[in-house]
Amino acid sequence: MGEFDLIEHYFKKPVRHADLGIGDDCALLSASPGQQLAISTDMLVEGRHFLSTVNPARLGHKALSVNLSDLAACGARPKAFLLSLAMPRVDRTWLEGFSEGLFRLAEAHECELVGGDTTQGPLNISITVFGEVPHGQALLRSGAQSGDDLYVSGTLGDARLALEAFRGTVQLPSPVLESSRLRMEMPTPRVALGMALRGLASAAADISDGLLGDLSHILRASGVGACIDLPKAEQLLACLPHWPCPEHLLHTCVLAGGDDYELVFTAPAAVREQVQQAALLSQTPVSRIGAIRAEPGIQLLDRQGLVVQRQFQSFDHFATA
Amino acid sequence: MGEFDLIEHYFKKPVRHADLGIGDDCALLSASPGQQLAISTDMLVEGRHFLSTVNPARLGHKALSVNLSDLAACGARPKAFLLSLAMPRVDRTWLEGFSEGLFRLAEAHECELVGGDTTQGPLNISITVFGEVPHGQALLRSGAQSGDDLYVSGTLGDARLALEAFRGTVQLPSPVLESSRLRMEMPTPRVALGMALRGLASAAADISDGLLGDLSHILRASGVGACIDLPKAEQLLACLPHWPCPEHLLHTCVLAGGDDYELVFTAPAAVREQVQQAALLSQTPVSRIGAIRAEPGIQLLDRQGLVVQRQFQSFDHFATA
Repeated sequence: MGEFDLIEHYFKKPVRHADLGIGDDCALLSASPGQQLAISTDMLVEGRHFLSTVNPARLGHKALSVNLSDLAACGARPKAFLLSLAMPRVDRTWLEGFSEGLFRLAEAHECELVGGDTTQGPLNISITVFGEVPHGQALLRSGAQSGDDLYVSGTLGDARLALEAFRGTVQLPSPVLESSRLRMEMPTPRVALGMALRGLASAAADISDGLLGDLSHILRASGVGACIDLPKAEQLLACLPHWPCPEHLLHTCVLAGGDDYELVFTAPAAVREQVQQAALLSQTPVSRIGAIRAEPGIQLLDRQGLVVQRQFQSFDHFATA
Repeated sequence: MGEFDLIEHYFKKPVRHADLGIGDDCALLSASPGQQLAISTDMLVEGRHFLSTVNPARLGHKALSVNLSDLAACGARPKAFLLSLAMPRVDRTWLEGFSEGLFRLAEAHECELVGGDTTQGPLNISITVFGEVPHGQALLRSGAQSGDDLYVSGTLGDARLALEAFRGTVQLPSPVLESSRLRMEMPTPRVALGMALRGLASAAADISDGLLGDLSHILRASGVGACIDLPKAEQLLACLPHWPCPEHLLHTCVLAGGDDYELVFTAPAAVREQVQQAALLSQTPVSRIGAIRAEPGIQLLDRQGLVVQRQFQSFDHFATA
């Protein structure tokens, strides 16, 4: 099977929104009136972003998911995507599964594949997504203000817990491993929440490298600091009610886990009720875990409001290089 | 040096045209009024698209060039691009050279870097480009009509000749090797010609996998065939006046070479003079090498107009898989 047959068989679908999809030198898109195009790209490498043993359908889901998560963080509505794929060889079983997982998520978000590239090489999946957001309404990292509430969506840390189990540093009961593994392999992009937060959130980012690391991006861009209510944050590990996670591991997973693809965002205390409405509307749990303050840096506070000393390293793709 | 320092140091530049560049979850672009966005992406893998010995500045040039070439084929004006880079380690000398070659070409085309991704992994360069073209004026592969003239820009086959020399299948005198190598390592995207051909060319494609292969895409999309004046095509090898290329190699290089990044296009005979004007205006040599006809397939004609029998394989990234 050659390059063109492969594209034709697994990836070419008629486009509904784009002006022109796969099959020419370029795809053609028109922005809807009054909309800005939000664009993001993520590259996934075997052994770095996923284990070689991962189910291909889950990998297809994850590859698009991490990109949709960036659109969610900007409050953009997904529109289209490009897929570039380097593979050691044409493996039909793998392609069947991968494309199925990819398109299932794409269709759920009405995000259509409009182009890409395939080539031989070490497994590498590079996706670029396009979304639309009304002019000037994109959620940015730079708008957090002292006094704002600090929120995260969903749950945090279970993906990292699964990774630790695969690394052999912790043993998990089988149902806990299975549910954590699902979080690692099939993250849910918070697209509906991101859109519902337009005009409410003062700043937002997606959590891909761990809460503290991604929150720091917001703090640096906004020129502020934050305090986090540690007991509240600890409750964010989804499997905690089912498995007594040791404290040190709990903190690592929740605060510096990576691969969560939840949103961390800030909003003025005055819109607290609307934020809960947005959470309800988008069927996405949201937890208020702290506040923005003028002093730079992040303080972790215990139940008594006292500062907890902890050092965490956020995920860096070249940290070991 | 971590991921974020690396981006900051080598790749982050202030944006002039985009609404938001590197540093948030998404980049933000607005399309100019009346324009469609033309989008294309190409992934380059070491050993497949470039030799590991290539000068990094030339590689930076080539990586963007092959993408701009797709915009050229659509007649689009370059606007912005994304760069995703997987590298085995942070090699400052390599990054210095690569980014220099990349930005030199980007600036020449006023095409700005607005985002991307970096990660550890086997060397892989994935670029996505964005261009603009007035609504409905994009050059497509599907518009060729029986009776149209068939053209190519620039020269063809020298990149393949250099590859054959590196493979050891042919020995070239040093100046011939040097000039062919430049064609392989630093292709020129025909952006100005593509834009000048709006409203003139009936169909166009860029030549990345060899003239016959890329011409077939046009013919298939347009439901037509073509005949090529072989003696005219033979003259397209730039080094021919300086080196007597054996006939079989000459045909392979010119007709099925790959890595040319010239344009193949068709236009009604009635606009023959305007096509020459477009070539002049864009300072790009253009050669009329044949014609479109109703019968499907490609016929090669000799000096007497008789059909020449030849079999060529166009470049396929999975042909050996």
